[in-house]
Amino acid sequence: MTALAAAAPAALDTGDTAWLLAASALVLLMAPGLALFYGGMVRSKSVLNMMMMTFGSLAVITVLWVLVGYSLAFGDDLGGGLLGDPAQYAGLGQLMSPDSNGDSTVPLILFAVFQGLFCVITGALVSGAIADRARFGAWLVFVAVWTLLVYAPVAHWVFDFSSGDHVGGWLANRVGLVDFAGGTAVEICSGGSALALALVLGHRVGFGKDPMRPHNLTLVMLGAGLLWFGWFGFNAGSALGADQAAAVVFTTTLVAGAAGALGWLVLERLRDGHATSLGAASGMVAGLVAITPSCGSLSPVGAIVMGAAAGVVCAWAVGLKYRFGYDDSLDVVGVHLVGGLVGTFGIGLLATAAAPTGVDGLLYGGGVDQLGRQLLGGGVVLVYAFVVSGIIGIVVDKLLGFRIDEEHEVSGIDLVVHAETAYDLHATAGARSAGHGILGPFTQQREEPRP
Amino acid sequence: MTALAAAAPAALDTGDTAWLLAASALVLLMAPGLALFYGGMVRSKSVLNMMMMTFGSLAVITVLWVLVGYSLAFGDDLGGGLLGDPAQYAGLGQLMSPDSNGDSTVPLILFAVFQGLFCVITGALVSGAIADRARFGAWLVFVAVWTLLVYAPVAHWVFDFSSGDHVGGWLANRVGLVDFAGGTAVEICSGGSALALALVLGHRVGFGKDPMRPHNLTLVMLGAGLLWFGWFGFNAGSALGADQAAAVVFTTTLVAGAAGALGWLVLERLRDGHATSLGAASGMVAGLVAITPSCGSLSPVGAIVMGAAAGVVCAWAVGLKYRFGYDDSLDVVGVHLVGGLVGTFGIGLLATAAAPTGVDGLLYGGGVDQLGRQLLGGGVVLVYAFVVSGIIGIVVDKLLGFRIDEEHEVSGIDLVVHAETAYDLHATAGARSAGHGILGPFTQQREEPRP
Amino acid sequence: MTALAAAAPAALDTGDTAWLLAASALVLLMAPGLALFYGGMVRSKSVLNMMMMTFGSLAVITVLWVLVGYSLAFGDDLGGGLLGDPAQYAGLGQLMSPDSNGDSTVPLILFAVFQGLFCVITGALVSGAIADRARFGAWLVFVAVWTLLVYAPVAHWVFDFSSGDHVGGWLANRVGLVDFAGGTAVEICSGGSALALALVLGHRVGFGKDPMRPHNLTLVMLGAGLLWFGWFGFNAGSALGADQAAAVVFTTTLVAGAAGALGWLVLERLRDGHATSLGAASGMVAGLVAITPSCGSLSPVGAIVMGAAAGVVCAWAVGLKYRFGYDDSLDVVGVHLVGGLVGTFGIGLLATAAAPTGVDGLLYGGGVDQLGRQLLGGGVVLVYAFVVSGIIGIVVDKLLGFRIDEEHEVSGIDLVVHAETAYDLHATAGARSAGHGILGPFTQQREEPRP
Repeated sequence: MTALAAAAPAALDTGDTAWLLAASALVLLMAPGLALFYGGMVRSKSVLNMMMMTFGSLAVITVLWVLVGYSLAFGDDLGGGLLGDPAQYAGLGQLMSPDSNGDSTVPLILFAVFQGLFCVITGALVSGAIADRARFGAWLVFVAVWTLLVYAPVAHWVFDFSSGDHVGGWLANRVGLVDFAGGTAVEICSGGSALALALVLGHRVGFGKDPMRPHNLTLVMLGAGLLWFGWFGFNAGSALGADQAAAVVFTTTLVAGAAGALGWLVLERLRDGHATSLGAASGMVAGLVAITPSCGSLSPVGAIVMGAAAGVVCAWAVGLKYRFGYDDSLDVVGVHLVGGLVGTFGIGLLATAAAPTGVDGLLYGGGVDQLGRQLLGGGVVLVYAFVVSGIIGIVVDKLLGFRIDEEHEVSGIDLVVHAETAYDLHATAGARSAGHGILGPFTQQREEPRP
Repeated sequence: MTALAAAAPAALDTGDTAWLLAASALVLLMAPGLALFYGGMVRSKSVLNMMMMTFGSLAVITVLWVLVGYSLAFGDDLGGGLLGDPAQYAGLGQLMSPDSNGDSTVPLILFAVFQGLFCVITGALVSGAIADRARFGAWLVFVAVWTLLVYAPVAHWVFDFSSGDHVGGWLANRVGLVDFAGGTAVEICSGGSALALALVLGHRVGFGKDPMRPHNLTLVMLGAGLLWFGWFGFNAGSALGADQAAAVVFTTTLVAGAAGALGWLVLERLRDGHATSLGAASGMVAGLVAITPSCGSLSPVGAIVMGAAAGVVCAWAVGLKYRFGYDDSLDVVGVHLVGGLVGTFGIGLLATAAAPTGVDGLLYGGGVDQLGRQLLGGGVVLVYAFVVSGIIGIVVDKLLGFRIDEEHEVSGIDLVVHAETAYDLHATAGARSAGHGILGPFTQQREEPRP
Repeated sequence: MTALAAAAPAALDTGDTAWLLAASALVLLMAPGLALFYGGMVRSKSVLNMMMMTFGSLAVITVLWVLVGYSLAFGDDLGGGLLGDPAQYAGLGQLMSPDSNGDSTVPLILFAVFQGLFCVITGALVSGAIADRARFGAWLVFVAVWTLLVYAPVAHWVFDFSSGDHVGGWLANRVGLVDFAGGTAVEICSGGSALALALVLGHRVGFGKDPMRPHNLTLVMLGAGLLWFGWFGFNAGSALGADQAAAVVFTTTLVAGAAGALGWLVLERLRDGHATSLGAASGMVAGLVAITPSCGSLSPVGAIVMGAAAGVVCAWAVGLKYRFGYDDSLDVVGVHLVGGLVGTFGIGLLATAAAPTGVDGLLYGGGVDQLGRQLLGGGVVLVYAFVVSGIIGIVVDKLLGFRIDEEHEVSGIDLVVHAETAYDLHATAGARSAGHGILGPFTQQREEPRP
């Protein structure tokens, strides 16, 4: 997708635009989907904080993206394919007129918000690594800086294609990385950032010793369902049109999620003796992660192989944190980083030129060239995201303090940081608890969650 | 959008129609979204009743809208721009043929149901003011009469544009009110009606004294997420096409929700010391309320200002009920009435002619004319909705009794009115729990031999 | 919809494709919707197993559909209109190129996955009859075989229209059955299969004696809401275009769901004295079931009649299981089989030629011919699904054992089969709760030094 081509008559296609409108709404829904997916996995004392990290990311990133983030990512390249011109689309007012669309069949302002929602999801994904223990204000500061210093540059590298007078980023245009919907910019980037933050914040109290059971697996499965639903917007929306490519991408996205769930469940059944609902949800996400870069490059059967491989590999990889001792609480590394690597590198093996991106991988007779491009792209994004996110995290920690007190972590972050508890399921009479009023009074409550 | 133009060749556009189909589905989803948003906010003893008021509104209003409501709102004006011809589209059978579409690019029958879902949401919003204490049957009667006497006329005034032979309502056509998606017809109307009903029913037992904590904040946040998702259909669907206007509206809707959340959270943090999840959800809704009328009139940066202003003002306004002593239980007045006024009046200040509606507000050099139109439109709708809803509420109360017994309110409306309780999370064996008589057959049954 | 017409220039319409993309995503969402709808209805000790039967169906059926299911259903007829050629589209790679679309306005690969999701929903529906007591592995085997032997043939009969060189199934082409979106192939088929399985597995421990209250009615209502939302994709997506037919179908689908809820609630109120939330949700689904075959054949007012009739009849029919002693746990028979029969047969009475399918029913002067076709189609599908599903169920039971131990059923299937429990709402400190061994690594771990 080009940001701006030479001025040309408006060429909007209502069908393409209809799909991108719907797809953008779908991607927005991934935010609450992720909030539920993550929220259900933590303990009941920290579910609100977990959900707030996603909703807070949505609020902060959206505003920042409109103000300057989109320009950094999709503005004319400042040199070297590294970053876009931050002033070019600052505020997005430049894109209100249909004249701004060039030869695009969809409104560029819609493309801008569609891409902004990718940044939202990527940022929110990171928060899964630091469940239960991060100060909310510090998180918002981190994710704001991360948007400008990590996500926007990476999106420029990967997603900003040169076209006409417009010069885009280096991985997309010079290296020839294939990443249809964000295996690098979204998955590897979030996973690398998550690993850095997990190291900066350290592990939860009791990590590796106390059981930390998901407090509500119905929320996890609901969240997974909403994520899958939204992922069709994410992947098939990235076709930027309602065409054959979108249809193929839709197909591979569907089947990879299914195969991912099967792969994880089978491994789990063989290894542990049980097929769990958490495994089904996680495997589905793993399959979707791996298909994100590759959805436009595989046949449906290739997508089954890709999804199943990701399910198996990620089901294994989530155990690494115990071996290496980093507390990636909700397995952002195990699922998104590892799954993103599987998908990004897998293109080099499984891509078929019959698919929309038109590239053959090694197993389809395409040689090792594309695999090399994928290794380079994936590796660079991983290192960049890890290093810069780590630095931002350390600076935020020094300046503001990133972590809550241990005592508060044990008693529960929801009550301490947000002055709320998620559930009060036992109230059967209005007069039972002390305090009064709504909102203001809510924040001054003295109650403990429940006896 | 015109209701009917002179007969002309079918001009349906599949892209425009695709978006309006998707948008209509999105608006339908706002009903369960609202049910969860409201349901999570009440105590666990009344969540089902709260949800049922929304689902009941959906059922009753939809049927009534097809039978006569659409005609009242969008039929040819009966005179004075006050009401449409109730017989013109009674039953909607007149709109089954493509020939009925005139020069519209979308099927008029789809426009009819899209508008009907607006009425559903508006009606359901009202119920938030009378949580925990309204008889279900009385509510259904109220909302049915309200559909015909309050919503349909107001929709005619605001949304029914004259075109060709068709004469529409007075605010849209004579006054020149700008209300893209319902700041007056939906937000102010629901808020004014809610205030009237809160006064008619009186406050809950314990209002202002006992804490009334939301029983399940994960439902509130899920509901808020679904509402935001659906709101894209509500606002961008109101463009009635998949075009530049829809894309701009999508953008302003996204960013205003984000800014609303930030505005509320910042005020809350400064005032109370905590940023709550209830605040995030409420602020997001406040921002979306304010952008509803103004989504087609602002720049993206203007939408940030509008959303943030609504977040701050509404966070303050929800405290008014304690000062003035009306029990608007879930803050329909504080969020929808006040937010609707902010958005409707704010158009007079912040509108830019670069946006789809092409009007400049005071701050963009447009003078005070548009501000005057907005004040008139907003004020008239507020007074009308408040007065007529109040009268309907009083009549329903006299004839049927609107409120349950105090004793039942304290013990819990779900069990008394619906013979159900929402949760039974402790059953671990079939024989352990005592039945509450859910759905006759479930307990009024007899054992039969196993087949 | 034809599977393949004679080769012709690509005729894709972006608007039609945009709607089918969105509709397919909507149908996917029905799976988690159904998982929640069903999951909320069972007791808390078996909610995960219930949800897993839906998610497992989604995973298994999707993969199988791509590999061979679509070919069986929509490949060229092998003779007699009974089954398609299993090799023709095996793997779906044949449909990756735009050249494969013939004169279809939507990509055939998208049509293939859209239809695959119908199979997913139908299979998942069946599981509601065997709540709390089925081995997960046995269920997956059953649903896989059922996909090939039950669903695919029935879909071929009902949905595969002949066109050009392509010869389709017998009910659609020779009998002239009208079934717009699956009253027979989806509703009657799932209900018939469900009845067979309920008989094969036998009733739950305590059936007819112990109360089996829904453990979480907020999940039920959320699930119902998601189902309704998704149903617009199911029904209006079946128009395979963004046109007048889709708009009419959208309208009848909306109003029939509403009328179904009202019908059920009124009967319940008169019979039992209470209008329940479970009744509202069930009635809505009943109305949607009945409109599924008839959505393209009725006027909006006809849809109100159809929906209300289904609501009343199904509210009565769910009691039949107690009279006849089959434990159709979540009323798949009472709602989907009976509602499907109401809708399928009702076309013979209420169809109007003014609707998209252009057929008049008995009450609209169309004579008894169409009614006869409907009776034949509905009856054949019912008998076929019941018999073949019963045989598959018996074989699975003999070979693998379909049912868990009674002791495990009483203590709770979630813990025994999936090694999980859905909720842990009381954990306020990491060390407080005893782990149940969820996901190996979560408990089989060792502490590492904080980095």
